[in-house]
Amino acid sequence: KHKTRLRHILREEDEPTPTLFTEMDTLQYEGGEMEWKESARWVKFEEKVEEGGERWSKPHVSTLSLHSLFELRTCLQTGCVLLDLEGYSLPQIVDDIIEKQVQEGLIAPEIREKISFVLLRKHRHQTKKPIHRSLADIGKSSPSSEYHSPSPSPRSGSGFHRSTEDLRARESGSLSKLRESGLLCLPPSIDLSTTTSGSLEFLISLKNKFMKKIPRDAEASNVLIGEVDFLDKPFVAFVRLAQAATLGGLTEVPVPTRFLFVLLGPDGKTKSYNEIGRAMATLMVDDLFSDVAYKARDREDLIAGIDEFLDEVIVLPPGEWDPKIRIEPPKKLPSAEMRKSVFSLNELGQPNGNAGGGAASAEDEEMPAPHELGEELKFTGRFCGGLWLDIKRKVPWFLSDFYEGFHIQSISAVLFIYLGCITNAITFGGLLGDATDNYQGVMESFLGTALAGTVFCLFGGQPLIILSSTGPILIFEKLLYEFSINNDIDYMEIRLWVGLHSCLQCLILVATDASYIIKYMTRFTEEGFSSLISFIFISDALKKMMSIFNYYPINPDFNPDYITSYRHNYYLNNPFLFVFLSLVFNFSSLDWNQLSKKECLRFGGSLVGKSCKYVPDLAMLSFILFFGTYSMTISLKKFKASRYFPTKLRKLINDFAIFTSIMTFVGLDMFMGLKTPKLIVPTEFKPTRPDRGWIVMPFGKNPWWMCLASFVPALLVTILIFMDQQITAVIMNRKENKLKKGCGYHLDLFWVGILMAVCSFMGLPWYVAATVISIAHIDSLKMESESSAPGEQPQFLGVREQRLTGILVFVLTGVSVFLAPILQYIPMPVLYGVFLYMGVASLHGIQFWERMKLFLMPAKHQPDFVFLRHVPLRRVHLFTLVQITCLAVLWILKSTVAAIIFPVMILGLMVVRKTLDLVFSQHDLAWLDDILPDKDKKKKEDEKKKKEKKKAKSEEHNNSDEEVRTTTIRCVRSKFILDPGYLPLQNIHYCSEVTFRFLREFRFLMFLKEVSYTHQGNIVSI
Amino acid sequence: KHKTRLRHILREEDEPTPTLFTEMDTLQYEGGEMEWKESARWVKFEEKVEEGGERWSKPHVSTLSLHSLFELRTCLQTGCVLLDLEGYSLPQIVDDIIEKQVQEGLIAPEIREKISFVLLRKHRHQTKKPIHRSLADIGKSSPSSEYHSPSPSPRSGSGFHRSTEDLRARESGSLSKLRESGLLCLPPSIDLSTTTSGSLEFLISLKNKFMKKIPRDAEASNVLIGEVDFLDKPFVAFVRLAQAATLGGLTEVPVPTRFLFVLLGPDGKTKSYNEIGRAMATLMVDDLFSDVAYKARDREDLIAGIDEFLDEVIVLPPGEWDPKIRIEPPKKLPSAEMRKSVFSLNELGQPNGNAGGGAASAEDEEMPAPHELGEELKFTGRFCGGLWLDIKRKVPWFLSDFYEGFHIQSISAVLFIYLGCITNAITFGGLLGDATDNYQGVMESFLGTALAGTVFCLFGGQPLIILSSTGPILIFEKLLYEFSINNDIDYMEIRLWVGLHSCLQCLILVATDASYIIKYMTRFTEEGFSSLISFIFISDALKKMMSIFNYYPINPDFNPDYITSYRHNYYLNNPFLFVFLSLVFNFSSLDWNQLSKKECLRFGGSLVGKSCKYVPDLAMLSFILFFGTYSMTISLKKFKASRYFPTKLRKLINDFAIFTSIMTFVGLDMFMGLKTPKLIVPTEFKPTRPDRGWIVMPFGKNPWWMCLASFVPALLVTILIFMDQQITAVIMNRKENKLKKGCGYHLDLFWVGILMAVCSFMGLPWYVAATVISIAHIDSLKMESESSAPGEQPQFLGVREQRLTGILVFVLTGVSVFLAPILQYIPMPVLYGVFLYMGVASLHGIQFWERMKLFLMPAKHQPDFVFLRHVPLRRVHLFTLVQITCLAVLWILKSTVAAIIFPVMILGLMVVRKTLDLVFSQHDLAWLDDILPDKDKKKKEDEKKKKEKKKAKSEEHNNSDEEVRTTTIRCVRSKFILDPGYLPLQNIHYCSEVTFRFLREFRFLMFLKEVSYTHQGNIVSI
Repeated sequence: KHKTRLRHILREEDEPTPTLFTEMDTLQYEGGEMEWKESARWVKFEEKVEEGGERWSKPHVSTLSLHSLFELRTCLQTGCVLLDLEGYSLPQIVDDIIEKQVQEGLIAPEIREKISFVLLRKHRHQTKKPIHRSLADIGKSSPSSEYHSPSPSPRSGSGFHRSTEDLRARESGSLSKLRESGLLCLPPSIDLSTTTSGSLEFLISLKNKFMKKIPRDAEASNVLIGEVDFLDKPFVAFVRLAQAATLGGLTEVPVPTRFLFVLLGPDGKTKSYNEIGRAMATLMVDDLFSDVAYKARDREDLIAGIDEFLDEVIVLPPGEWDPKIRIEPPKKLPSAEMRKSVFSLNELGQPNGNAGGGAASAEDEEMPAPHELGEELKFTGRFCGGLWLDIKRKVPWFLSDFYEGFHIQSISAVLFIYLGCITNAITFGGLLGDATDNYQGVMESFLGTALAGTVFCLFGGQPLIILSSTGPILIFEKLLYEFSINNDIDYMEIRLWVGLHSCLQCLILVATDASYIIKYMTRFTEEGFSSLISFIFISDALKKMMSIFNYYPINPDFNPDYITSYRHNYYLNNPFLFVFLSLVFNFSSLDWNQLSKKECLRFGGSLVGKSCKYVPDLAMLSFILFFGTYSMTISLKKFKASRYFPTKLRKLINDFAIFTSIMTFVGLDMFMGLKTPKLIVPTEFKPTRPDRGWIVMPFGKNPWWMCLASFVPALLVTILIFMDQQITAVIMNRKENKLKKGCGYHLDLFWVGILMAVCSFMGLPWYVAATVISIAHIDSLKMESESSAPGEQPQFLGVREQRLTGILVFVLTGVSVFLAPILQYIPMPVLYGVFLYMGVASLHGIQFWERMKLFLMPAKHQPDFVFLRHVPLRRVHLFTLVQITCLAVLWILKSTVAAIIFPVMILGLMVVRKTLDLVFSQHDLAWLDDILPDKDKKKKEDEKKKKEKKKAKSEEHNNSDEEVRTTTIRCVRSKFILDPGYLPLQNIHYCSEVTFRFLREFRFLMFLKEVSYTHQGNIVSI
Repeated sequence: KHKTRLRHILREEDEPTPTLFTEMDTLQYEGGEMEWKESARWVKFEEKVEEGGERWSKPHVSTLSLHSLFELRTCLQTGCVLLDLEGYSLPQIVDDIIEKQVQEGLIAPEIREKISFVLLRKHRHQTKKPIHRSLADIGKSSPSSEYHSPSPSPRSGSGFHRSTEDLRARESGSLSKLRESGLLCLPPSIDLSTTTSGSLEFLISLKNKFMKKIPRDAEASNVLIGEVDFLDKPFVAFVRLAQAATLGGLTEVPVPTRFLFVLLGPDGKTKSYNEIGRAMATLMVDDLFSDVAYKARDREDLIAGIDEFLDEVIVLPPGEWDPKIRIEPPKKLPSAEMRKSVFSLNELGQPNGNAGGGAASAEDEEMPAPHELGEELKFTGRFCGGLWLDIKRKVPWFLSDFYEGFHIQSISAVLFIYLGCITNAITFGGLLGDATDNYQGVMESFLGTALAGTVFCLFGGQPLIILSSTGPILIFEKLLYEFSINNDIDYMEIRLWVGLHSCLQCLILVATDASYIIKYMTRFTEEGFSSLISFIFISDALKKMMSIFNYYPINPDFNPDYITSYRHNYYLNNPFLFVFLSLVFNFSSLDWNQLSKKECLRFGGSLVGKSCKYVPDLAMLSFILFFGTYSMTISLKKFKASRYFPTKLRKLINDFAIFTSIMTFVGLDMFMGLKTPKLIVPTEFKPTRPDRGWIVMPFGKNPWWMCLASFVPALLVTILIFMDQQITAVIMNRKENKLKKGCGYHLDLFWVGILMAVCSFMGLPWYVAATVISIAHIDSLKMESESSAPGEQPQFLGVREQRLTGILVFVLTGVSVFLAPILQYIPMPVLYGVFLYMGVASLHGIQFWERMKLFLMPAKHQPDFVFLRHVPLRRVHLFTLVQITCLAVLWILKSTVAAIIFPVMILGLMVVRKTLDLVFSQHDLAWLDDILPDKDKKKKEDEKKKKEKKKAKSEEHNNSDEEVRTTTIRCVRSKFILDPGYLPLQNIHYCSEVTFRFLREFRFLMFLKEVSYTHQGNIVSI
């Protein structure tokens, strides 16, 4: 069968073949002269020339007819196939082709000249005109061109169509006359689309723009399709050049041609020829067939390639699909490697069933990717082993952590996160000030944020994490302060000791690799935590907004009539005071009117009536600012998916969405000129409370045993910090974010601990990772691939991992004291809007949230989530309900004093998750959540692994020839079973079938995503 | 070839075959027992059972592999085909099949029993559980079911998958133990999906719900696919029953089975068998193949059917598409008629090229549908001919015009349009009152609107049109009033005469069928006009909103301090007045403070300072109401496309979007309790100006020649009314609206004329069609098809054409005088929001607007508009620019006094359009606009037609045998060339090739969309 043949040629060599760019030109009669006109091109997807529209169609999937594929197969069987022709110029190649055909008796020698003439006609390429040019063009081109020159494709279009054109031309003859008589002053049109002259520079620049879409090493394949009257049977040639050569103006872009397919046929079947040409072109850009074409030894290899293509082809029934619909390129494509591997695999077992069917139903076997947190969380068993590995992992990136930050996106990220940080600093500073009688106030909050943040971003394991004060810490401080006041203990000193103990405890946790327990935190816990934090963010933003409404209430009774009458009330209520004042100050009562409210109050008066304290419009305007900022940000973020403006501009708008919104609404606020509540930052660098300095002394004010006793509250703080910090880190390191520089759980905790001690000494608040702001940080630094083949979706490449943005944010926070004159223009409602956005945005992409939405959707409208295919809806709903219940309980806890044990509750979540093992099957949980690591199993696996290793070793000893050495198994994404590395395996070539089976079994046993092994240099994935 | 064969069987009879519902069951081993389990079903598209999810997948296009289709072909070639088997029960049918196979020697007699046993296993169907059930279920089902019973599809799933399951089951053994030990109290699960027992009523009701999706006359085809160990080669049977019979629980729904396909095969190739089964099922629901299957005489016919299917199949290259992607059903499907017609065509010419290729490139030949306004605008040449035809057309619908209005959608439409109407009535009433010194005021406006609207909706030709005052009429009245005041002429009397003259002129226009000139109004004019009106609506809404800001300005200087000090200013400015007042009223100055603003003003005082006139919060709240109403309406309208809630609820939300938004923001306004400007309707039924009555006398106050002279201004009014009325009618009758009851241009104009006279006599304003409100009316009455095959898009069916909503709107307007207590709660900003929405919504779907957006889009992001495929972008832009310029000029004109000649300007637009013929080619214009009817051409066509008729007649005389009589040509959508009717043509059967050519030629010559002719009862379209 053809598969054996292909297996032969595809395994021969290993060197990857170049990507092919395919251009299809059709023969057209333009004003009596023949020429080749580009009619479609393929980089990966088809782009067709819209004849009338003089433009490229959108890239689309080439839908072929089966008929044309079979016809093409026949063409290759009967036509002339020239492989590895030595060609340097088109005329020579054409000569060679014709010579060959004559030799084989395929064509009569007398039409040799004619064919050569046709094949050497000039090529005209479709070029997109720049817009400024086309605008200039508008005035120039006149309709006369449509009448004087025949329609652009008289031969290729239908004859009937042409006759209509002619008819119309005749009808409109009067117009032409009008034009000739001078009544219409239109210059004769200039045909700009003829680009073979190539002298116009702007066209070249455009070509270069398209060149960017073609891979650097690409070669071209040209498909020439024409219809001539002197042939009575088709003239077919398939040429592969020995060396790719640039053949004059044959190709639209300066890419050397490697393949040439020519099909000239007798009159009357243009449609059919075009379809064959499209089939050929589509084949040429097919990963597998292009490989075959490069490596084919003879005609039969090519035919085998087509047969393989036909085998894998996807068929749409004619009654269920309209062939006119252009199919948009899919978001994800099957990898070429997978398809090719079938052949490099050799006899290593055929997949069950046929190739096409197997692919379609492969999903049944699929299991979700196992829960993975990477080797970073492995328990090393050595003192500071994890920390040491973290540092080793991070050091090589240290330099790139700085220079990779230089990007325009960083500016937007810095501004966004900066505003989030200072708002947080001010809010928490204010609250801490209230809670501790200004022992820690806004000033301390700013300083602490700047200090802790900068240090962490400079040296931390995950510099994308943003440190901030958090709610639980605030509550702890409050309780501690109350305790110390009630018991006559010096607050700052005991706080220092708690901090020191906590620091010590953190360091112990670091030294013992305690962070490894994080791996028991599955998606259930993680999403529960981050949803809760998001909800808190959202509710806080709304609460703050509401508080503005309370502070500046709307006064429905406000009536201009009453403005003048409240003073009257005043008099009625304070007749004595009035009399007194008139006597003392010797004022006539009239002078009261001259007093402003302030003065009135100074004299002990008080204003009466609803209208008095009333500041109008503020609540409404605040609401508009709040809601406006939020919705404008959302809209600008969405704008990225719109059709307007070039991609780059849209990317910019997307990156600067938050900044633009803030600026817009700050501007609106300034324009309105109302006294909305503004951001107020301290302007002087001094402790908020005058009786404290910048350093706290550890001894002197409290009894000595306090130093030891503070160990107990420190424990609470440590748990609190540990959970907050590490869950955030887990969320940041989610594999969806595609982080490349690895994580550093131990290193993070180390620095948080150290900063804790430092802050305690300086009397600054304690800092820990802030989930929502950190997520916002990572979101604002996402990268997408720039250019790819037309129609290919831009890929999410990962995150701009660097330390620069974080450092800048915190340095800016530090110098905010000096930025006060600028910052004072920012109204608080705008910042609340930003908070609301942060909260809502961080909910995005959380599976829990998606599952919540499912409650509102009827089954038939539900999106095609993969877990819905595998888990019954009622189980999904039950799982979601459990999560909702947990969050509700946590929410209630958070609202009481129990908030301090809130992080401990996360441990509760993990217990709940463990209990779910009893309610849900492991299969369901694997889809909805992740499977908990099992200690027993792990041990078993370990033993197994050891055994295998031993076995492998012994076998290796027995039989160590070279071939075995080249065959190694590499486990990709092993969970904790196999060390990444090489596990040599025996005789894979000889007992191949068995091995293949074993490897597949192995893959499922180990919950591995993919097992790949190298065999004689080929990487084979199962 | 197979085509000849198909042509034979497909032409045999004409009776349409029933629709097929296909169900595929696969053999599964459930707990040691075999059973058939439903794995997919097809009504038109495939719905797969998601094994794990226990649910139906979304309907999707069946993607097949070519391999499976070929395998199926082989199966049918080698297997047993039983056509027209007399079957009444499954056992009997199975016996017959096996008997046949044994006879043919395909199977050994000894396995007869085994096969029979397998085929008669019970069938288990997938049923969607109702949600209340599944919620009740949640508590019941325990994980134990997953452990105790084997996985649902042990044989069909991959072996590896199974072993994983087993492994997990073993791992989780501890859980089962826990359960057994009583720690977990979960009852054993009850398998609810076994529905063969069929005793549960709710399942039946659900089935019935699905039954609605299957056409009433449908029959079932069952595909049974299984894998057994006792066969060594596949057992294949294709059975067609002579009569469709209900075979027990074979089919999920009570649909009688007609076809049965059985494939039992040896172990090990389940995937491949399933694919063959899917291919068979897909074939069975294919329109063409199911026809073939019904009519096949033997095995070869079926094979020919498959070959034809393969010919038409659409092929996706494997490298450009991922077979795992489920393709959503397309919006539009190729019609089955088209595909079948190829075969009923007989020898009448083969389309160029092959079928598949031809279909894919048919678009090249396609021309846009010609501009059509229907025969209603034909020039009859008889007195009142058009009017008479209009009445004849409308009378048969008159009754249905009422009972078709009874639908919930009507309520929403009435409320929406009612609010639009009274807002308009109040606005224009107010403006008219200003312009005419209250000769016509709000009261007259209400009364006139009610009267004119009710009459028009009762008797008008297009009852969906809403009459209203319009801007140009307002300006005319203003000018007329100024003229009569300046020249001492009685305004009401001259107005009466102008109205009478205008009425007369309208009637003359009606009598002479003058409305036919409307057909020179192409999309260019029509869209220009409606865009302009939309822009005016939008700008008016915004202007009115702005005026609120001016009326209740925001006071940034507002300071509570100043409240007390402005009185001080007052004193300073009016010292004398103060002294005077104190003397006269004997007030102490203190008493001034006791005065309210009102009193103060009464005493001649005036308030000074910015804070005085100031009403706070109103502007802001108004803005929130305005913008909120608008954006909430937009969101609710968009909500229809969301995934949430069942389709019906979403439809309801969509229908009541505007009403809901209005209610919400009226509620918000009431909650706020601020004194926003409210809708105020007159509460007493009397003329606004006391010195006028309800009847205007025609003589007495003005000189007699005035009666005649008013002919001149009347001309202007007539043009104005004619243009406004008829363009609106054209927009309403756009073919996109799919109106079925025909239009009545002449009848409309007749009533507008009559109402003009009536209104003039009663001194009420004149009324004419209001474009934007009429569009809103039609939009709010759109219908979509309810149920169709799963996956098929709901079709836009047309508009609820009736008179009821219109009449109700105007009756409500009439009684609004009594509704004042309710209406006074509606704030004006809410209504402005509704206006803004109306303006924006009426821009929707206008091609001009789409083309404007193109300016902002880079070429590659532009949507795939059909005109972009055929017209170069720069020409499209040029055309759009011309339109923009025209609109800009009109906009400027409208803003000056020249507004009165605004409707005349529409004629100007038509002239511009005529000039465009010189700048653009007819080809481009055909795509961008419509081609203007050409008088010369028309004459030519007429002559041609006559000639043809003559010729046809003479030939008919010569040679009038029966066969010729059956061959007639019917022209669908002829423009104005051919009368709809029958034009007999000669010998179409004999000189078929030539005729076919001729007919195609003819089609293009005549710009016909489609030419179809009946040939021996078959309708053939070209």
